[in-house]
Amino acid sequence: MTQNRRWLLASHPQGDVAAEHFRIDTESLPDLDEGQFRVAVDYLAFDPAMRGWITGRDTYVSGIQVGDVMRGMAVGVVEASRNPAVAEGTRVVGMFGWQEYVIASSMRDFNMRPVPDGVPPTMPLSLLGITGLTAYFGLLDVGQPKEGNTILVSGAAGATGSVAAQIAKHVKGASKVVGVAGGPEKCAWLTDVARLDAAIDYKAHDARGLYREVARHFPQGIDVFFDNVGGGILDAALANIKVGARIVLCGAISRYNAVNPPPGPVNYTNLILKRGRMEGFIVMDYAARFKDASMELIQWAQAGHIAYQEDVQEGFEHAPDVFLRLFSGANRGKQLLKY
Amino acid sequence: MTQNRRWLLASHPQGDVAAEHFRIDTESLPDLDEGQFRVAVDYLAFDPAMRGWITGRDTYVSGIQVGDVMRGMAVGVVEASRNPAVAEGTRVVGMFGWQEYVIASSMRDFNMRPVPDGVPPTMPLSLLGITGLTAYFGLLDVGQPKEGNTILVSGAAGATGSVAAQIAKHVKGASKVVGVAGGPEKCAWLTDVARLDAAIDYKAHDARGLYREVARHFPQGIDVFFDNVGGGILDAALANIKVGARIVLCGAISRYNAVNPPPGPVNYTNLILKRGRMEGFIVMDYAARFKDASMELIQWAQAGHIAYQEDVQEGFEHAPDVFLRLFSGANRGKQLLKY
Repeated sequence: MTQNRRWLLASHPQGDVAAEHFRIDTESLPDLDEGQFRVAVDYLAFDPAMRGWITGRDTYVSGIQVGDVMRGMAVGVVEASRNPAVAEGTRVVGMFGWQEYVIASSMRDFNMRPVPDGVPPTMPLSLLGITGLTAYFGLLDVGQPKEGNTILVSGAAGATGSVAAQIAKHVKGASKVVGVAGGPEKCAWLTDVARLDAAIDYKAHDARGLYREVARHFPQGIDVFFDNVGGGILDAALANIKVGARIVLCGAISRYNAVNPPPGPVNYTNLILKRGRMEGFIVMDYAARFKDASMELIQWAQAGHIAYQEDVQEGFEHAPDVFLRLFSGANRGKQLLKY
Repeated sequence: MTQNRRWLLASHPQGDVAAEHFRIDTESLPDLDEGQFRVAVDYLAFDPAMRGWITGRDTYVSGIQVGDVMRGMAVGVVEASRNPAVAEGTRVVGMFGWQEYVIASSMRDFNMRPVPDGVPPTMPLSLLGITGLTAYFGLLDVGQPKEGNTILVSGAAGATGSVAAQIAKHVKGASKVVGVAGGPEKCAWLTDVARLDAAIDYKAHDARGLYREVARHFPQGIDVFFDNVGGGILDAALANIKVGARIVLCGAISRYNAVNPPPGPVNYTNLILKRGRMEGFIVMDYAARFKDASMELIQWAQAGHIAYQEDVQEGFEHAPDVFLRLFSGANRGKQLLKY
């Protein structure tokens, strides 16, 4: 009998999420029936959106309830199969959750798909994962960057921001792309590896300083702001938008742990004066185009346009602590866990 | 010699605008040169946007400086003409400012245009004025209401909100239109005269009550929110948007007199979950379509689809006090002053 360790939601966090909101559990998996196959998961991906899934409320997806296996995208290998359509050894990616094994009857279970040949095993979770696809559709469909545009990206060293910023700069011909990140190490990565025009270290500035830095880098204003963070950088960007600017609301990680939501952007009224647009999106709405988008992302990565970082921690037993790295800003690029 | 009384900006207001920020002045106008004509102004229109013009800062228009004649749209009659192209007795509308007479050399001066035959003398300032055109383009081009949509309008008894709400309800086939206004009298006008589905009296509710009222009227959510006000009603609306909602940022009169701008909308992150869009606009960007829009507005008014209110106060010497009625909410519909 296969022993399957899995992380369950222990309670809904109020305020900061912590390791104590999860508990580990072991179940014995039954033997495979005819038609079934078993996936041994080896990498799990983490995403800030998970913070929203564990509040106990339904949003664009149903909320995770106490006692449920924690939801998450992962990759693994079919290690045993009694299904003639699924060969042992097949690499797959799917919503397997925070657990070591899953039993499936069809490739449609767990929104599973095979990992194409030649694609590195973790790429489906990072560049081609939800975070990379979010960058693709958020920047291109919502932000609609035009050649010569000026673009600001917050959370720019993160898994989504880094991809959005590099598509803007190296694929779509933006005249200037500036990334915002926390600390000199991340900022150096933005200019040296991602080859953006400049980086702003938000930890080195108060709200007024952030405003001044944005104004200094964009004397003519911002055409597109791709926001993963909210808070001070959103206000600084709003104060510096150009006529017709697009603000892509991708996320607001600065707010996800707040018990009482902090005030919204004071400068939203600048959207009136500048005829600007602030627009949210959910990447799942673009699911029908994921395959084509993935092909483009692979091409851009192979052509050297997009560098992407993976932060691979190890040990299934550390899953909650690895998740928390997203909120402390400890992660360098896409946060993954190797089992 | 014609004596021309005019209101000049006396100082830039910090916080609440007051009568003391204006001063009256009299100048002697020269006799007309060959090619010139003189307009005797008889009605002046007021608009909340004027509060932005007197801050001392340039925005989408240049700021009004201390000592300048206060800017404003007005109608009048050509009372003397030495220009063969302009007949005495011609009714005209233009940016004549807060003064009794102007001298012009061409119909292009003061953005002047003749008032079409059959149009009541004040209609160019109210239904066909900036406020009515703002309703037209904001609702139709930015809000893009579709048949069967649910629509909320703030400042709904005002010159812009009332036109936007009635176009939505009686021309564009919205399934439900609810207006927000202050006090039972304005709310009764919304349901009885403008024939909206319901009215919410914001003065009768705190922030939580406002939220509950909006939720009660829109159990399935809001497709379009046309916002003239900002503050609590914007947050209540954001909390109740439907997937794909459009928030038209027309104005934010609750904020215009604030020295330190109040916090922005806490619930802006709901734009992410609901894939919503919040967008500002400036009516002057649509100037090329003003003539066509005016024709449609006249047709809709004649067909009984749009009732519009004019609040006509009298006496040129009261201009500043009449302007202040916009901020106390004293006005009933479009605020005008008869000289």
